Amino acid sequence: MTTTAAHGPLDERELAALHAYWRAANYLSVGQIYLLANPLLREPLRLEHVKPRLLGHWGTTPGLNFVYAHLNRVIRARDLDAIFVTGPGHGGPGVVANTYLEGTYTEVYPHIGHDEEGLRRLCRQFSFPGGIPSHVAPETPGSIHEGGELGYALVHAYGAVFDNPDLLACCVVGDGEAETGPLAASWHSNKFVDPVRDGAVLPILHLNGYKIANPTVLARIPRDELRMLLEGYGHAPRFVEGDDPLEMHQQMAAVLDEVVAEIAELQHEARSGGSAARPRWPMIVLRTPKGWTGPKEVDGLPAEGSFRSHQVPLAHLAENPEHLAQLEAWLRSYEPEELFDESGALRPELAALAPEGERRMGANPHANGGILLRGLELPDFRDYAVDVPEPARTSAEATRVLGTWLRDVMRLNADRFRIMGPDETRSNRLDAVFEVTDRAWMAEIEPTDDHLAPDGRVMEVLSEHLCQGWLEGYLLTGRHGLFNCYEAFIHIVDAMFNQHAKWLKVTRDIPWRRPIASLNYLLSSHVWRQDHNGFSHQDPGFIDHVVNKKAGVVRVYLPPDANCLLSVADHCLRSRDYVNVIVAGKQPALQYLSMDEAVAHCTRGIGIWEWAGTDQGGEPDVVLACAGDTPTLETVAAAAILREHLPGLKVRVVNVVDLMRLQPPSEHPHGLGDAEFDALFTASRPVIFAYHGYPWLIHRLTYRRTNHHGLHVRGYKEEGTTTTPFDMVMLNDLDRFHLVMDVIDRVPGLGERAAGLRQRMVNERLRHRQYTREHGDDMPDVRDWVWPDAPPPASASTDAQRGSPA
Amino acid sequence: MTTTAAHGPLDERELAALHAYWRAANYLSVGQIYLLANPLLREPLRLEHVKPRLLGHWGTTPGLNFVYAHLNRVIRARDLDAIFVTGPGHGGPGVVANTYLEGTYTEVYPHIGHDEEGLRRLCRQFSFPGGIPSHVAPETPGSIHEGGELGYALVHAYGAVFDNPDLLACCVVGDGEAETGPLAASWHSNKFVDPVRDGAVLPILHLNGYKIANPTVLARIPRDELRMLLEGYGHAPRFVEGDDPLEMHQQMAAVLDEVVAEIAELQHEARSGGSAARPRWPMIVLRTPKGWTGPKEVDGLPAEGSFRSHQVPLAHLAENPEHLAQLEAWLRSYEPEELFDESGALRPELAALAPEGERRMGANPHANGGILLRGLELPDFRDYAVDVPEPARTSAEATRVLGTWLRDVMRLNADRFRIMGPDETRSNRLDAVFEVTDRAWMAEIEPTDDHLAPDGRVMEVLSEHLCQGWLEGYLLTGRHGLFNCYEAFIHIVDAMFNQHAKWLKVTRDIPWRRPIASLNYLLSSHVWRQDHNGFSHQDPGFIDHVVNKKAGVVRVYLPPDANCLLSVADHCLRSRDYVNVIVAGKQPALQYLSMDEAVAHCTRGIGIWEWAGTDQGGEPDVVLACAGDTPTLETVAAAAILREHLPGLKVRVVNVVDLMRLQPPSEHPHGLGDAEFDALFTASRPVIFAYHGYPWLIHRLTYRRTNHHGLHVRGYKEEGTTTTPFDMVMLNDLDRFHLVMDVIDRVPGLGERAAGLRQRMVNERLRHRQYTREHGDDMPDVRDWVWPDAPPPASASTDAQRGSPA
Repeated sequence: MTTTAAHGPLDERELAALHAYWRAANYLSVGQIYLLANPLLREPLRLEHVKPRLLGHWGTTPGLNFVYAHLNRVIRARDLDAIFVTGPGHGGPGVVANTYLEGTYTEVYPHIGHDEEGLRRLCRQFSFPGGIPSHVAPETPGSIHEGGELGYALVHAYGAVFDNPDLLACCVVGDGEAETGPLAASWHSNKFVDPVRDGAVLPILHLNGYKIANPTVLARIPRDELRMLLEGYGHAPRFVEGDDPLEMHQQMAAVLDEVVAEIAELQHEARSGGSAARPRWPMIVLRTPKGWTGPKEVDGLPAEGSFRSHQVPLAHLAENPEHLAQLEAWLRSYEPEELFDESGALRPELAALAPEGERRMGANPHANGGILLRGLELPDFRDYAVDVPEPARTSAEATRVLGTWLRDVMRLNADRFRIMGPDETRSNRLDAVFEVTDRAWMAEIEPTDDHLAPDGRVMEVLSEHLCQGWLEGYLLTGRHGLFNCYEAFIHIVDAMFNQHAKWLKVTRDIPWRRPIASLNYLLSSHVWRQDHNGFSHQDPGFIDHVVNKKAGVVRVYLPPDANCLLSVADHCLRSRDYVNVIVAGKQPALQYLSMDEAVAHCTRGIGIWEWAGTDQGGEPDVVLACAGDTPTLETVAAAAILREHLPGLKVRVVNVVDLMRLQPPSEHPHGLGDAEFDALFTASRPVIFAYHGYPWLIHRLTYRRTNHHGLHVRGYKEEGTTTTPFDMVMLNDLDRFHLVMDVIDRVPGLGERAAGLRQRMVNERLRHRQYTREHGDDMPDVRDWVWPDAPPPASASTDAQRGSPA
Repeated sequence: MTTTAAHGPLDERELAALHAYWRAANYLSVGQIYLLANPLLREPLRLEHVKPRLLGHWGTTPGLNFVYAHLNRVIRARDLDAIFVTGPGHGGPGVVANTYLEGTYTEVYPHIGHDEEGLRRLCRQFSFPGGIPSHVAPETPGSIHEGGELGYALVHAYGAVFDNPDLLACCVVGDGEAETGPLAASWHSNKFVDPVRDGAVLPILHLNGYKIANPTVLARIPRDELRMLLEGYGHAPRFVEGDDPLEMHQQMAAVLDEVVAEIAELQHEARSGGSAARPRWPMIVLRTPKGWTGPKEVDGLPAEGSFRSHQVPLAHLAENPEHLAQLEAWLRSYEPEELFDESGALRPELAALAPEGERRMGANPHANGGILLRGLELPDFRDYAVDVPEPARTSAEATRVLGTWLRDVMRLNADRFRIMGPDETRSNRLDAVFEVTDRAWMAEIEPTDDHLAPDGRVMEVLSEHLCQGWLEGYLLTGRHGLFNCYEAFIHIVDAMFNQHAKWLKVTRDIPWRRPIASLNYLLSSHVWRQDHNGFSHQDPGFIDHVVNKKAGVVRVYLPPDANCLLSVADHCLRSRDYVNVIVAGKQPALQYLSMDEAVAHCTRGIGIWEWAGTDQGGEPDVVLACAGDTPTLETVAAAAILREHLPGLKVRVVNVVDLMRLQPPSEHPHGLGDAEFDALFTASRPVIFAYHGYPWLIHRLTYRRTNHHGLHVRGYKEEGTTTTPFDMVMLNDLDRFHLVMDVIDRVPGLGERAAGLRQRMVNERLRHRQYTREHGDDMPDVRDWVWPDAPPPASASTDAQRGSPA
């Protein structure tokens, strides 16, 4: 390596020290990928010092180390409160090395000490069975972002800075991940950052030119085109480009000084009332060779600066002694003896380059948000109750009611609660929140606009990816929020949910990671009420997707009415470390439970609705179960038909709010014991279960129950189009008439009167279908249906009275 | 409306005619949203002429109509082969109106004639029960893109033009959808279009300024910033902006003439060998008011030019007679009497403005790709067989073998077959294809690059969204392809899969839509072999997601070895109108079946492996079932342990290739009859099922089977990290030792020898775990395991011989 000091802000001593620090990080990164032992190369490298399986990614690592070392310098110089978001998560060894060098790593993992044995363990544990993963995983201090699935770094960084005015999120964006859709959309996040109340993101687009086997798009367009693109995104880019380390140190130090000062100035100007315009935030384009400082050539092919550096540039060491020699030379090129003292500790003059205490990026509490978490101040949801004097007689819009409570949650927690949604807060009828805040908006505002403001805390953008990613970043840094979304399109973030659920699962086993607020989804505009849209907007399968993740992490709620929704939402906003999925309609719908009843019902999560049934506490002939608002309406209506027409039939109505109650306790912590379950669903009576989503899930959840043979589930069977609400349930055989038919088909010995009723139900379906096709609307008798007054006493002669108590 | 002819390429007569055509489309669009009857307003508008439920989206529609009318003009002028991709799918009434006006609609739906009754039906059917959906759905002629879920318009347009050198895909991108990730990434598709062998995409970014309740980002950044963004994407944008219709007609006509000529010139230059550089393709930014030509104000609030025009600007007509009057005035503002003749037909001088025959965008065969579909010329996959002289003794990399066949598929179908993948074709070991083609790449190429070329037909970009969307567009226009992807990250396109599966389901019922090639996924680098990565890369849940869609559309295959993979892949590439999911490993793995055996096995989709079992055709004591390559290996190894140590135990090994065979025929067309199923799995013996994915799916699929109580499933239970392959199966209790323990736990009366074996298995697991943690690798006895020679004959005295035939 050259040692001539290049021109720039660093004097010779600073330059040498910074360079040494970077070499130490690179050395430990290579060491982690390769070494089992001999971590300081105090003896010649032999095969037994090397791991038998070489798993990791070198390519991106030296660039990450370079950025980290330089950030350390400006953090110290300006006492910055900064976190490091590592887009290329494969660079795990780099971030581990840096948090080790700065001391954080040993603080949380004391067995990895600052001596030769600690170094040996540090190297050995990486990508090793029983050790640590190869990525910037939850196990890595200072991380809020794994980067295993690429594309979410920038959106996480933005989520971190909302309502964190003093925070600087330094975000390395890989040029591979820059090709993903979520990342491409994330650049526009700067239209949602308020320089007054939010912190700043410093994107560092790292062009190392290659993915696994390919160049990257952004590295292969002309520099001017790239500059236009980034300026088009609203940024003021600076370019740091080259491969000579000392030259690059000077460039990077100069640019970092400049951009950090500029950010401070932009914030100062905005905060002192100077400018309300959207700042052109600075960013850095860092172009360095992939696998920088690694082997130049391997087996006659270029390695440094090529895709061949992506994972391990030298492999098959056992078969190829030349590679072993190359590895040793590579490691020694960092001059480890200059970096570590006799005991194996980083030399004090280098250790002094790291920031101190919580200013270290690995120790910054924002990256372990649970430390900073303050519970929400929640207004008593009971005060927002809908008056329900009698069940199923009055109507309300559940999400509109929830909106009034959320408004006050917003008001009371202006520093730590946000609502995200793809342009649907009003459509989902949560618009009461606009009484106390606005939509975040730093782009141009016109006089006719509705509730837009730089400091708004409702975040709307037509990208589920951004909503999800912003919220994840916000939660991971210790705040709270809610994502409201059309049910069908939440599948857009299936993969992001996976990664967050995996993150939560892993953090449960990491003692130094503190619990964070749950990720709360409110799915409205659900499958049954996509009146303006149709088939493309109908998909209730997110629930199925969610329940594949660890039971300890996921919760699913289907509140049947407004008061239940309030109760459930309150519960979810108080919870920690879960993903809570709430599905609730926005349309006017029947209300069933008073607030006291709702609280009791939601606390149990499941229960018998005695007012709707006719089993009067005894063993029923049939159980009508339901989960979800639309299925509940149809079930209650079916129960009313049965009450009127088969008055001797003992019908029990069971409503399920907490879907996880259906599982045994061995499968989910919310699971109902078998005895309790049997007490509700009986051991052998037919159960007709009307479910909001794909029917199979109910079979899955109840698979181990005594009466699962008696279970017959109706739900969405992927039939739909633009039509009326009642036609939708009929298309899927979930309607009240079909439920009555299901009962008659499954309860034995109901006799002629039931057969007559069944035929009537068939005719009713036809009549409704015909009316709808003629008039383009549902018949008033279903549209305006309410729970009827008690029917006249049943005729004593009916043969439908089997099953009555003797 | 003003009638002064503005300055531009259109003479007064042309201008008047074009404007009239646009008015006709707008008139019919409003008519579809509102009218039940009186479609020509030949009597005063009364409430009973209006639909009771007003469902649709007016806001985007006039802009779409504007573009469509202008495209008609240039298509006629230059005999263009053009299709219309409608990003804002909500503009359904506009595209329906235009295909009606050009005559296509009546050709495919003869009951919607060109007379007053036809117009009445046209209006009535829209968003009406029993009628058509509100979107540009599969029912809409000329569409390959519904736009229900936003963000995929541009990527579909690009998919359409690959290998279609004469095609121009005109793609209207809504400024709402432009905020989505997939759309934001799609702009870079121009780095993958070869001006020689591919057609061209003309993106028309339609800034109407608003989403449902919000402005859009791209409409609220300065024009210069937007221009830089689009130039940064590599385009040469033209701006058409305004609200005066006649002025706008002249602008749009001039710009369209210009860009179409420019595209022709760029293509001509490239095709005549002039330039190999990436063209700066033209595009159009069209800025018009939302709800253009609609009511200016409703209830004192601005409607035209505001988000209030998004759906129906006038509603509640029954309660508000003023709105009814406004609606009538709005409709009459288009002067329908000038547009339609006495009979209700479009006046001939206007009808003459549409292109003819297949040049009409509604009738272009590329938008009904099945018409153009030519089957693939497929080399005989048997010729690529791996030699398997004995089962489970030799090793091969399944996907590498498949690659040799795909290479020749590529070679023989250079005009109609592409492979897409996020940078993983080589990683997934399909790199033999690079012997006959390259990666498509129009960005800069450096000498050290590997197989990049403008006319390459392997498409790699680090965006699953682009891979999926390109392939969808390619298939929908009548070609074939394969998407290879890491298994975990295919969830990124869960939502896109949903939409494609819904599209296929609907097209099945549309007689004029012809079958297209299936969408084939090859998921490699699967959950069990994420050696370099770990937990974030482990998710086998895409299969679960897929099986929620209509059984008629989805297929899932888990070939256990290379020959089976060849057989399955050949089957999938011949199929039509399905989504086929193939999961297959890329690592060296044991091979089980010769090609003849593989063909027979895959044809059945499920079968007994007699060589692996000890039931010799009789009733077994236990069934070991498996699906997926890793579970198959563990199952076969478990069977070998049982053969050696419990030789009297009759073990049957069943392997499942076609997962849908597990369902009853009532649930899936591939379903096995109950008798056949029972013959394989027995009616009551324990079945230990080792499955590739989340265990619940097997329970779901076999839910209705006689022996489902006997079924015990092992699979991925969301446990993993960066570790060795065998440690991964142990973490999830899917390993051979645990399967043996499961057998012993479930087969009653096995006695002491079995108890001893069980303890040995527990110890084996510990021993392996310990070895792995110590050495960082699997023990050679599992790493290099092959099917053992026959064990010594069992001692006669063993108590494990229960169940032998007497």
